[in-house]
Amino acid sequence: MEQASPGPYPAQPAAGDDIGRDIYALAEKIFPISRSITGDGVRKTLDILAEHIELERHEVPSGAQVFDWTVPREWNIRAASIRDMQGRTIVDFADSNLHVLNYSVPFKGVLPLSELRKHIHTLPEQPQAIPYRTSYYAEDWGFCMAHERLEEMPDAEYSVEIDSELKQGSLTYGECLLPGETDREVLLSAHICHPSMANDNCSGLAMLAFLAAGLKKRPRRYSYRFLFAPGTIGALAWLARNEQRLGQIDHGLALSCVGDGGGPTYKRSRRGDAFIDRAMALVVGRRGDGAKLLDFSPYGYDERQFCSPGFNLPVGLFQRSAFATFPEYHSSADDLSFIRPEHLAASYRMIMEAIEIIEGDWTPINLCPKGEPQLGRRGLYSARGGNRSTASSTMAMLWVLNLADGDHSLLAMAERSGLPFGELAGAAALLREHGLLADAPARRP
Amino acid sequence: MEQASPGPYPAQPAAGDDIGRDIYALAEKIFPISRSITGDGVRKTLDILAEHIELERHEVPSGAQVFDWTVPREWNIRAASIRDMQGRTIVDFADSNLHVLNYSVPFKGVLPLSELRKHIHTLPEQPQAIPYRTSYYAEDWGFCMAHERLEEMPDAEYSVEIDSELKQGSLTYGECLLPGETDREVLLSAHICHPSMANDNCSGLAMLAFLAAGLKKRPRRYSYRFLFAPGTIGALAWLARNEQRLGQIDHGLALSCVGDGGGPTYKRSRRGDAFIDRAMALVVGRRGDGAKLLDFSPYGYDERQFCSPGFNLPVGLFQRSAFATFPEYHSSADDLSFIRPEHLAASYRMIMEAIEIIEGDWTPINLCPKGEPQLGRRGLYSARGGNRSTASSTMAMLWVLNLADGDHSLLAMAERSGLPFGELAGAAALLREHGLLADAPARRP
Amino acid sequence: MEQASPGPYPAQPAAGDDIGRDIYALAEKIFPISRSITGDGVRKTLDILAEHIELERHEVPSGAQVFDWTVPREWNIRAASIRDMQGRTIVDFADSNLHVLNYSVPFKGVLPLSELRKHIHTLPEQPQAIPYRTSYYAEDWGFCMAHERLEEMPDAEYSVEIDSELKQGSLTYGECLLPGETDREVLLSAHICHPSMANDNCSGLAMLAFLAAGLKKRPRRYSYRFLFAPGTIGALAWLARNEQRLGQIDHGLALSCVGDGGGPTYKRSRRGDAFIDRAMALVVGRRGDGAKLLDFSPYGYDERQFCSPGFNLPVGLFQRSAFATFPEYHSSADDLSFIRPEHLAASYRMIMEAIEIIEGDWTPINLCPKGEPQLGRRGLYSARGGNRSTASSTMAMLWVLNLADGDHSLLAMAERSGLPFGELAGAAALLREHGLLADAPARRP
Repeated sequence: MEQASPGPYPAQPAAGDDIGRDIYALAEKIFPISRSITGDGVRKTLDILAEHIELERHEVPSGAQVFDWTVPREWNIRAASIRDMQGRTIVDFADSNLHVLNYSVPFKGVLPLSELRKHIHTLPEQPQAIPYRTSYYAEDWGFCMAHERLEEMPDAEYSVEIDSELKQGSLTYGECLLPGETDREVLLSAHICHPSMANDNCSGLAMLAFLAAGLKKRPRRYSYRFLFAPGTIGALAWLARNEQRLGQIDHGLALSCVGDGGGPTYKRSRRGDAFIDRAMALVVGRRGDGAKLLDFSPYGYDERQFCSPGFNLPVGLFQRSAFATFPEYHSSADDLSFIRPEHLAASYRMIMEAIEIIEGDWTPINLCPKGEPQLGRRGLYSARGGNRSTASSTMAMLWVLNLADGDHSLLAMAERSGLPFGELAGAAALLREHGLLADAPARRP
Repeated sequence: MEQASPGPYPAQPAAGDDIGRDIYALAEKIFPISRSITGDGVRKTLDILAEHIELERHEVPSGAQVFDWTVPREWNIRAASIRDMQGRTIVDFADSNLHVLNYSVPFKGVLPLSELRKHIHTLPEQPQAIPYRTSYYAEDWGFCMAHERLEEMPDAEYSVEIDSELKQGSLTYGECLLPGETDREVLLSAHICHPSMANDNCSGLAMLAFLAAGLKKRPRRYSYRFLFAPGTIGALAWLARNEQRLGQIDHGLALSCVGDGGGPTYKRSRRGDAFIDRAMALVVGRRGDGAKLLDFSPYGYDERQFCSPGFNLPVGLFQRSAFATFPEYHSSADDLSFIRPEHLAASYRMIMEAIEIIEGDWTPINLCPKGEPQLGRRGLYSARGGNRSTASSTMAMLWVLNLADGDHSLLAMAERSGLPFGELAGAAALLREHGLLADAPARRP
Repeated sequence: MEQASPGPYPAQPAAGDDIGRDIYALAEKIFPISRSITGDGVRKTLDILAEHIELERHEVPSGAQVFDWTVPREWNIRAASIRDMQGRTIVDFADSNLHVLNYSVPFKGVLPLSELRKHIHTLPEQPQAIPYRTSYYAEDWGFCMAHERLEEMPDAEYSVEIDSELKQGSLTYGECLLPGETDREVLLSAHICHPSMANDNCSGLAMLAFLAAGLKKRPRRYSYRFLFAPGTIGALAWLARNEQRLGQIDHGLALSCVGDGGGPTYKRSRRGDAFIDRAMALVVGRRGDGAKLLDFSPYGYDERQFCSPGFNLPVGLFQRSAFATFPEYHSSADDLSFIRPEHLAASYRMIMEAIEIIEGDWTPINLCPKGEPQLGRRGLYSARGGNRSTASSTMAMLWVLNLADGDHSLLAMAERSGLPFGELAGAAALLREHGLLADAPARRP
């Protein structure tokens, strides 16, 4: 049988190598910015993202109560360094914003190495990498540095300065809403609080921006909400301000570490069998040996908050390598060489594939359910019989017809048949065109 | 413990090597006949089968509407050949009825090889085999031949003749009903439309006849319906004529390719957990490494029609090697050397084993459910204690007593215990004889 | 994060090597006694056990009806031997109480070897071991002996004497009840009828006594009933006398063969998913390669009676090596060298671990269910962020908070998270202390 015309099923926007290069370029642009859970780094990052999508910016004042938490004072930092008494620079914030314990209080003084060491964080097992450390909610100051550099420091006095500031200000997050035919929502989020680490999470932020740009161009059954918020406190602030609207969220994904070559990894929502969990199982499950489907656990990114028992939203986590499983994780080794345009392009395609399932799923009813309809006289079936193999397009039609009893949506058909969702959706569109299928409207959202 | 008397459980009719030889002989007898979905080949085949069983013959006129299909004109063929201009025979229908594209329209003419080639079908990867091809619903003519023979044909003119006929006539199918104690039915079917191929499906047709002959001799709780119908259109014609009766069908099996040494293979009904699916899983599951249990898929034989969503009958497919998985499939290599009496005998026994489960299943109630009854004083348990192993007959009794709570039929007990159904049925009969079990009548069909 | 204070969760009593030595010493003490399903051997054994726990002794008269069974006459034996005509001892009951077929009727006579052989039981495949054999309900006499000893016996006459007695008397069982906060019960039982075999079941009897002694010292939510009864008939007698009380039993374990180094093995109750089955799956499942979880089968020890369909109690079987799987089983090779203090100690700890789950399970409700509560400001979370690994105590808190929706008890949380029950229970206690969890009282038994 000849491949049928694709029918009304909306084809996926072309996403070749270009998309990977574009996402990479954006990740590269936001990489140098010093970010934290509050402060101007987040605002600068949102400014750059806003060159690609329309972003609504929200400021939540310091001291605001969000559920069990209080928004902390706003943190900004200008400079920080350790120098020896000869004025030689040992560590300088200007070289890497990972050098300072994130949220360090201001400090200036001269200390012996023995005292200074209590404020220094290293990774002895990766002596060249600078670790990423934070102290958001306990006042402290500190430096992070390569372990081998620390080992070289003579036992002497050092001049230390952290020129940072904690002030009444606000926490900033960005949001972009693309309205669709219905007000049922898909929530896509990426944390914006991590400083210069490419995979975690410049990759996620840039990906989110390009997903928004890509979806803006196509018809949407669902409304799409893109959230760029600081981890934990930012997600909680958004949840607190949008609590009455959460019931509209039918599907969601948190994105982080989407630029390396590992995985793909999908961590299920707390529900475990939500539509997004089933769709991502199809998408990721087809990706061969490295692919991992993980059950929900209450540790990770903001799916922790979305999936807390008081919300229990259908939000999973998509990554390439799972967090904390690669040596570059949370260190200066997570730099721009660790992510690749082709991996970003592949991640983009996988997320878009899940969105195609979300958008394209429907529940057909076979209008000719007694026996098979005669596809041949409609030109839908090979005129010649007896062949040993069957075209996959024919198999897709036979599966759709067989399961179109009103109890199976196309997603369920893909799960049962093992055929790609897109082939079944194409077959269903063609069969509907030929009057063999009807829509079961009550089941559509 | 001594093996108990077998009790009232009806023992399976002896089926040794003889049954295999008998089935083989019948398959051999019907092998040469030129069959199609209509025409005299089907009628001749039914004549021979009727020597073994009482067959009711049905004729469905050309043009009759069956659901979405129309019964085509009746096709018969007398002769067909390709000759070179010296009159030498290249291909002759008299040598193999696979040589003609099944349902070829009449044709007579002289063509250059270049033109003739468009009407010739071969299997380049199996150069000695003649493929089986059909064109039931698109008017065409053609030949099928060994690829190596085609390669030898000089680039010349050829004289071609197909002496066939398409006429207003009828489609023929045969049916045999063996009434049982109840009018609940078991449907057993085999397609009768394939020409000279031994496994697909002379084996299935001959098997069906001997199953009918065997079951005729024994008491039957169920009524058994044996259907010998052309593939697809024949099954649909039967379904259309018997639609009001389909609700009586509790179990069913389609049979094809039951004579080779592969498998056994059982493809589940669309329901997936029908009684026949569970029974066949027990039967086939005990057959070791080659055994395959496949989920339903909407491609195959007439289970496609029986399991269409408008009927959704509990009908599975039993085969040895699964269709399209062996090189002889749909070619002249599927000849009488490909099937063997011993494989036919084994297939017969497996199907009969499933029928034993269908016939012999019941739901016992333990009349002595508090603790174990004292089997020893009834002579049902070894007088001597302390042995390391337990007779399987004892284990069968203990399982039956333990699960005889009204929620487990013998089939469920076999599934849970891992013991053969027959042993459990024997144990249950014995325990009932000793007053330890009663029947739960409401659960019997 | 610092390890939190353990909170109100009751810590398990210390059980080091001492407990293993104590259990072994008790098993050693009861090993030599000649036991059967009735008679003074059981009473002597109960006398010794009563040195460790308060035992209530019950006598059930010969002839009493227990369900389908009748309590047999009481059996006692003083001596038994086979001597040759020169008066040399071939076999003497004084050397091993396995030498006599258990429940042999009195016999005295002179027989040729050919006649005597009909009354002799050996294990040809283990020629040095004396088998254990019984004939409780069919009057018979016999000897059990090493096969190699039998092979040495010249074909001659032998003088045989069995000085035993069958009389109207009673069957004896012992029971110990430790009342708890509620009258919901945990039933722990071990069969007391086997003569000198160390693993089967001196180990189980001694274990049961030390479990009772250990549990007596600690607070108990549940009441604990310890049953020392002869196999089958003793368990049935207890069931018959306590039928009205069986509804109070929420959990139960039969114990046998708990002193060897195999397994551990847990055989599920007939229900398959009872709380005890789930708890033991956690306990045994953590024990690595040798660990076995078996589905219920109606053969084994007194779980057969407890799990008969008329009772269907939630009682599983705990063993080290599963019965009938080790060569020492039911023979003189099951001697005191086959069991070891360290294995007994390990078995004790596993059973106590299951009891901790039974005692410590509850269903918490998260009082702060929207997002995560801020654990850091309560001192429950590391102040420093960005670390690659998370303390298991932190993971336990996050899991408890996430699943504390009223649908998950701590046991369900352990199953889903893969974390040890004890860690989750500790975390839950700590979180309750900090006002983050409340009890769902209706779910507690």
